[in-house]
Formats: sequence, C-alpha cells, structure tokens
Amino acid sequence: MSVTFPRGFRAAGVTAGMKASGRPDLALLVADEVRGAAGLFTTNAFAAAPVRLSRERISRGLPRAVVVNSGQANAGTGLRGDRDAETTTAAVAQALGIEASRVLAASTGVIGEPLPVEAFVAAVPGLVEALSPEGGGAFAEAIMTTDTVPKEAAAERGPYRVGGCAKGVGMIAPDLKLATMLAFVTTDAPVPPAELRRLSAEVLEPRFESLTVDGCSSTNDAVLAFASGAAGGDLVLEGQPAYEQVREAMEEVASSLLVQLAHDAEGASHVVLVEVSGAERVEDARAVAKAIAESPLVKTAIFGGDPNPGRILQAIGSSGAAFLPQAVEVSIGDVPVISGGQVEPSYLEAGVDAARAAVREAEILISVALGGGPGEARALGVDLSYDYVKINAEYTT
Amino acid sequence: MSVTFPRGFRAAGVTAGMKASGRPDLALLVADEVRGAAGLFTTNAFAAAPVRLSRERISRGLPRAVVVNSGQANAGTGLRGDRDAETTTAAVAQALGIEASRVLAASTGVIGEPLPVEAFVAAVPGLVEALSPEGGGAFAEAIMTTDTVPKEAAAERGPYRVGGCAKGVGMIAPDLKLATMLAFVTTDAPVPPAELRRLSAEVLEPRFESLTVDGCSSTNDAVLAFASGAAGGDLVLEGQPAYEQVREAMEEVASSLLVQLAHDAEGASHVVLVEVSGAERVEDARAVAKAIAESPLVKTAIFGGDPNPGRILQAIGSSGAAFLPQAVEVSIGDVPVISGGQVEPSYLEAGVDAARAAVREAEILISVALGGGPGEARALGVDLSYDYVKINAEYTT
Repeated sequence: MSVTFPRGFRAAGVTAGMKASGRPDLALLVADEVRGAAGLFTTNAFAAAPVRLSRERISRGLPRAVVVNSGQANAGTGLRGDRDAETTTAAVAQALGIEASRVLAASTGVIGEPLPVEAFVAAVPGLVEALSPEGGGAFAEAIMTTDTVPKEAAAERGPYRVGGCAKGVGMIAPDLKLATMLAFVTTDAPVPPAELRRLSAEVLEPRFESLTVDGCSSTNDAVLAFASGAAGGDLVLEGQPAYEQVREAMEEVASSLLVQLAHDAEGASHVVLVEVSGAERVEDARAVAKAIAESPLVKTAIFGGDPNPGRILQAIGSSGAAFLPQAVEVSIGDVPVISGGQVEPSYLEAGVDAARAAVREAEILISVALGGGPGEARALGVDLSYDYVKINAEYTT
Repeated sequence: MSVTFPRGFRAAGVTAGMKASGRPDLALLVADEVRGAAGLFTTNAFAAAPVRLSRERISRGLPRAVVVNSGQANAGTGLRGDRDAETTTAAVAQALGIEASRVLAASTGVIGEPLPVEAFVAAVPGLVEALSPEGGGAFAEAIMTTDTVPKEAAAERGPYRVGGCAKGVGMIAPDLKLATMLAFVTTDAPVPPAELRRLSAEVLEPRFESLTVDGCSSTNDAVLAFASGAAGGDLVLEGQPAYEQVREAMEEVASSLLVQLAHDAEGASHVVLVEVSGAERVEDARAVAKAIAESPLVKTAIFGGDPNPGRILQAIGSSGAAFLPQAVEVSIGDVPVISGGQVEPSYLEAGVDAARAAVREAEILISVALGGGPGEARALGVDLSYDYVKINAEYTT
C-alpha cells in the first residue's frame, strides 16, 4: 500500500525502458487535492537538476505530484540536465492537466549520464493511465535501483493515515540533509504547509539523517511529504491532539522505512544502532555517533564478529567532539566494554565471549555515555563486508 | 641505514616476547649528543599514555632517546598505562645512564591491552647492549605491526645527512596530526630546537598529514625528529643556505617514507594522489582532497578499475568546501572527466577507455581545479579492496 494507503492519492510505476535491467523505472505519485507539501533535500554542492527544480517549486507553490525515474540521476549534467527536468515534468503536467509548477521531480541512478528524455516522455501517457489508488506498490518498485526489496510502511492514528516508501542502498550518509535516498511520505490528514514543514523537520529529518551506509551524501537525496486532507475535518495545527496523532503515525512510518533501508544496505550483514547520551551539546553527541557508525575499522570488526572496543575508543577520540575522556562509558549490547575512558578490564578478562555474542546479532546496539550532559543522538549504520566492496567495485553509480 | 645514516645516532631492535608473532617488538634510538628534538602527535582525545608522556617531556626538555614497542598500543589503559610508560622509560634511562626525562616512548599495536611491563623491562639491558651505529635497519623492523616491509629513507645535502623510518598500514588519516603511524627522522646537522620544530611543521606535518588509508586517526600517532649535530659546524638557522640543505634532505626523506607507507597500506592495490588547486582557501582545497581520497565509493571504484567521475563529483560536492560548481574541472591521469561542473561529454562518448587505462596504473593521479583561487592541497590515499576488509575483519588492532 505504502504511499497510497492514505486516501486521496493515486500512484503508478511503469517500465519506460530507461534502465539497462529492463525493470520498472518510472513512477508517479499524485494527490487528488493537496493541503500541504514539504521537502528535505541534499546539501551536496552538486545537487542534481531534479533536486534544484523541486526545491524551487516547493518553495513557491503547492505541488501535488512527483515523477521519479530510476537509472539516471540527472546530476552532473549541467544546463542540459535542467532543461531535461523541465521538459519531463512539463510532459507529466500536461498529461495530468495541471500546471508544470505543481509537478516535482526526483531521479536516482548513474551520475553524469543524460536523462533519456524521449523514452521518458513517450512513457508518460501510459504512466498517467496507470495511476490508481492501489498503485503504491508499483510506485515503490519503480523507484528502486540496486535495492533488493521495496521499502514500504503504513500507520494509522485516529482518523488519519500515513503511508511511505523509500529507496536507497549506498551513497547514504547523515551529512546534513540525507543521502542517495528518496523517501515519500503521504497523509490524508488536512495538514497545512507550515505544519507539514514542521513535522518534516521534527520527525523525518532527524530519522533519515541518522542513517549512514558509507558516509557519502548524494547529489540526489530528497524526502517529500504530501498531505491530501482527504480524511476530512479541521486543519491539523500544532498543539492539538490531531497534530500528535499525525506525528505519531509519521514517526512509525519513518522509523520502519529507516530500518528497512538499513537492512537492505549494500553488503550489510549487520545493522548497527549507535546511541550516544550525556554530551554537553547535541552536536557532540552527533559527531560521536557518526564517527562510530562510519568508522571502517569498527565496521570491518563487526563484519568479522570482533567487538574490538579499541576501535570504538579510537573513533570516539577522533570525532572532534568535546568530552572528558575519563568519563566515557561504552556498552555493546548489555556488555560494558569501556568504562572510565579505558577498555574495561572485565572485558579483557571475561567479557570477550559475551561481547562476541552481541556482535553476532543481526541488530547490534552500541551505547555510549559521554558524561552528564543533556545531549543525545543516534546513528544507524551497517557493517563493511566483502559484498560492499564487490557491489561498489562492479556497479557504476 | 635509515635513522642511523646521520652521524651521532645508535639504534637497536630486539625481541622482548611481547608480540604474539614472536617477531622483534622493542626498538631504541639514541642520539649520543642532541642539539634539537621535535615532535608531532595525534590529536585523538584518547591519546595513548606514551603520546602524553612524550608530548610532556619534549615540551620541557631536550630528550635524546626514544623507546618503541610494537604489539600493544598502551592506549585506553587509564592510569595503569601512564605508570607503565613511566616505568619502562625509567628502565631505559637507567640502562643508558641518563635522566628519565630525556627518554621518550612510542607504542603501536592493540588498543586496550596493558603493556607487558615485565617482559619489556627484562629486555632493556639486551636492547641497550645491542645499540649500534648500524642499528637503523633493526630499529625499523622492530617497530612494525602488520607492515609487510620496513620503510626507510636517507638523503644527503652538502655536509648534512638526514635519515628516517616509519611504520603504519591502517588507522591512518590526515585528520589533524597524523595517524597510526610512527615516523622517526634524524639528522646530524646542528639544528637547534626552534628550527627543528619549524622544519617539522613545514616539512613533516603537511606530508604525513596528506596520507589517508581509512580516515581513522589513531590514538598513538607520533613523528619524532632528532638532530645530533655530529656533522659539526655552526648552528643551522632559518634563512641560511644550511637550513635549505637540511630542509631539502628532510623533504626527500619524508616524501619517500610517505610513498612507501601508501604502497604498504592494508589491502592497497593502487595508490591515489589527489591534487587540488584553484581553491579560495587552503582549507577548501584540503577538504576536497580528503573527501575524494577517503570516499569509499571512489576507493571501491578504483579497486574495480572504474574511473566513475560521478562518484568524484559526489565526493567534491559533499566535502563542505566553498567553490562554484560550474567552475570545477577534474582529470584522471591526463583524461578530462569533469568540466564546467558536469561529467565531460567527451568522457561519456570516447574517454572511458583512456580513463579506464589511467585507473589501472599502480599510481593514479586525480587532479581537481576548483576555480581561480590560490589554495592548493594534496592527499595521498589508496583503494578499498577485499583485502582491506579481510585484514580488518580478522586482525584485532
């Protein structure tokens, strides 16, 4: 169901023939009516043409459709890329009978290759024809690149539904605003633009930013949220119980998509959640969480089934965060491995087996207490395996 | 020859039995007399006990010996680690008949394990006994961990000799002050402390900081320089021809050690030199050089023989550096792959084969022009291979 679980949305996914694999590569999501729209975009200096187009259109109006192609990123394509994004969204707008400014674009795939505009435009009538309130699944499949499974989620609170889907398996990092990840979140709650932007900032941004596969933030990352209002009732405003209902449902959807993305990450055999607390400032907690989750030494140790507290210590120490070394405590699962800023003597004597068992789990929790401050942060990462190298040495993204 | 190529130095390397492999694990370098000493140390917040001891002693006096053990890093070992560093350097000082404050320490190996003090101290008399003006080779071997070859260099300019050796294959990054790298540089020129510090900052620091294997700066990094003055003559002061002679010889030694370190890096099958020019500020050039050299996507592409300009573009864009995207030019070898901020159309049409040939070389040059500014920087990195994962998944550092 995913993005079409909330009422008032139609979606479709078709094969336009742009992807070498011959799999579905063109997707469309349309809100019949729209109350609110919000977007989070990459901060990569080489933001792709569709990112720049969508950022511009969402800042000036109230878009109600997004067309997504997979196979070509339309990034690093210069002025031609901008023209191609204009042309393809114009074709979609015409087929829908709406203004071009109300159609957003997202692309994912190889950087630098031009968009196959002819094949794209030729597929638009069939794409619009295929739109359906049951089209969420087809949409979620057509946005995939090297994803092995579509990522979909749905939640309901009171009268409101929230749905979502996402794609992304590599070039994923929490650096600023997301990653080679596309995520789409819909709700039928009548949430106006300002409230939807706030919910995106409060709910979607911290969650999707906590995900790191390889520390590489992409040129194409985007998270788009649309509210159709089809559930009816009064506008959902901050401070009301309805706002909390939508918020909770969005949290459920975002958290589910996040875990699905991590488990499907390139070559990942373990998902690693790093929880940092006790920092003086949130930025310090974030720096430590990210340093651990992105350390190739920690990631390869986890792949090898080795708890290796020394590498965690090294990563914390090199994070640039402010903390008192002698106050640092770290556990893997519930096994203390660092205390008082040094490798726990009990770990060296008796804890290795327990910690080894903890790093063999499919989901591993590394908890770090930096001191007594209020700053907290999380990072969700994965291990670094032969398969990550294989996939990225052999596949051209 | 390495560190004993300059006159006035003796060195030794012995097997104390602290390293599981049973290979040489204890090394000593002594200047018969000393004119100058200088040190560069890691900025990791969990700096190892020997780093803290050496930093303190070099800031207060004129040390003339350094004892190095390989096998245990004596990092993450708390107060016990500090005591152990004191005890072991005191044993060396006593055997040499000098004050403890004149002996520095360096350690490399597993983080968190306590130093085997008894075995260390028991080996000291034999170590001092073995000191010889031909001991540079034994010293360079005894400081190795997973290094496959010792790294040694020597250079001569006018009346002055400079020698050096280094170790380090992983946990190496240019973040601030070096990496799990130890390097020792000696000269027989009579260089006073202030001049030797200046030469270290000008010659050694930028070179060793440009090296990145995995972006992980270690708890134990140190580069130590000693000047014996045994070549005789006047003190070497800045602005004199003698200063330039020493400087040139140090550059030759440091550059040679750097390339040797890169070629022996864990799992490296290619060495990648990234040269960035045209930045407004040096920091921007450094951020871009580092982003490319440390990108796992660029590193795996190079391992796979894929030039992949899109990943280089992504890395530049996510570096946080300030530049105009449309001004960026990138070449691999002499093949232009990005121009005007977009993937070069000629690359897509005809350049792929030439660029593929360029990334199959053992040493690969990626040149980036960011614009018309004066800022330049270099980073020396390596590819990311199955062997990197294998070594780091199976070896406990």
